Amino acid sequence: MKNVEVCVTPELVHLYGVENKIVVVVDILRATSCMTTALAHGVISVTPVATLEECKALKDRGYLAAAERDGKTAEGFDLGNSPFTYMDRDLLKGKKLATTTTNGTLAITKSVKADEVVIGSFLNISSVASYLIQQEKDVLIHCAGWKGKLNLEDTLFAGALIDLLKDHFDFENDSAMAAHCLYQCGRHDMFDFLKNSSHAKRLNRLNIYKDIQFCLSRDVYQVVPVLRNGELVDLEPAALEASAGA
Amino acid sequence: MKNVEVCVTPELVHLYGVENKIVVVVDILRATSCMTTALAHGVISVTPVATLEECKALKDRGYLAAAERDGKTAEGFDLGNSPFTYMDRDLLKGKKLATTTTNGTLAITKSVKADEVVIGSFLNISSVASYLIQQEKDVLIHCAGWKGKLNLEDTLFAGALIDLLKDHFDFENDSAMAAHCLYQCGRHDMFDFLKNSSHAKRLNRLNIYKDIQFCLSRDVYQVVPVLRNGELVDLEPAALEASAGA
Repeated sequence: MKNVEVCVTPELVHLYGVENKIVVVVDILRATSCMTTALAHGVISVTPVATLEECKALKDRGYLAAAERDGKTAEGFDLGNSPFTYMDRDLLKGKKLATTTTNGTLAITKSVKADEVVIGSFLNISSVASYLIQQEKDVLIHCAGWKGKLNLEDTLFAGALIDLLKDHFDFENDSAMAAHCLYQCGRHDMFDFLKNSSHAKRLNRLNIYKDIQFCLSRDVYQVVPVLRNGELVDLEPAALEASAGA
Repeated sequence: MKNVEVCVTPELVHLYGVENKIVVVVDILRATSCMTTALAHGVISVTPVATLEECKALKDRGYLAAAERDGKTAEGFDLGNSPFTYMDRDLLKGKKLATTTTNGTLAITKSVKADEVVIGSFLNISSVASYLIQQEKDVLIHCAGWKGKLNLEDTLFAGALIDLLKDHFDFENDSAMAAHCLYQCGRHDMFDFLKNSSHAKRLNRLNIYKDIQFCLSRDVYQVVPVLRNGELVDLEPAALEASAGA
């Protein structure tokens, strides 16, 4: 049986290894939720970068560029880091997007040797689960965490994804069981559960609660973002069908 | 309010820091359970070492020495790694003990800059909790884990200890909340919960189930093992009372 494991922070990913696996990178608040939203609203690709400078450099090459400072779109950038800023199809359609994220970019960078890197969020959780079930590979759910520590929201997502995979994958390893258990514990009111998380307290503003509520919404979109040469693109529905038939 | 945090593996302890804190080192299966049992049965001190060679060297200097290979007391040693081998008061009383443990020794070594290093297990959980409540210091529960990864049994203990501390400490950080949640999930049948853990599967023998059952028993002993110059000794009841009165 295929195996699914959970790595709760990029600091530990060397212990799990990414080779020959599909790695699902998750940074629920808010990087992977925003990437998913952007691809669902027509961008061609999303390039995650670690710094404002790199993001600015891509903007100078014609990308739409996203960066947030103090809860607002940073000066000179086109979009912020709230998923609600990624819903303007007229602005996004056909464009390439560059976005800043520290924890998310680190998790992606540390996953590049995987057979496939997939971006997961609650917004596309069932599409990601269907894709994983169709493949004949072990899966590592790679949580971006926060500054090297585990965080609740990413681990909670890992547990929710395992819950969808559990009839198709062996998940009897300690990290996966712990994540699944966390999800059992928090599933009935994830928003309330997360209100006390360090992320919510860090961003103790009205807007972040609206963002959190949205980032916890399941299956709003059907995209499956995958990494191709440093860019995240939506896996074509045709490719999905082909892989299902293979 | 004092703060309690959880570090799920020694690989992450640099992110939390141990300075100015009381660090509770936990390696439920079976290092810290054995240390607690040994101190409760009369040994003067327990010296944790990482290798058989170091353990043998201390045996040559007159220590009782504990080491296990293939589920039995290793040749040339006095005790194995099952807590049941640490209950012979006639053998243990007044002796110094050296014991091999890889994950546990690493967690202790990485905690030495703390204000105090305390050894925790279910066997002495309430005594440890009482001690922590009496002190005016932040606490870090440092799980030994397994080869750098988090494990269920140590994280479960962290959650159980937080449950005893929760009226006296702030635990609204993500790792502590996750551990507490894991405990809520597994508390009603910890043995059943752990039967699927990687440790239990690794040691899939009749004896290990007996060991696990015992290592999950609460408050069998009242010792509070603390680190003094590389040796674990039981904190004197007089010292406990003095600190309570301070």
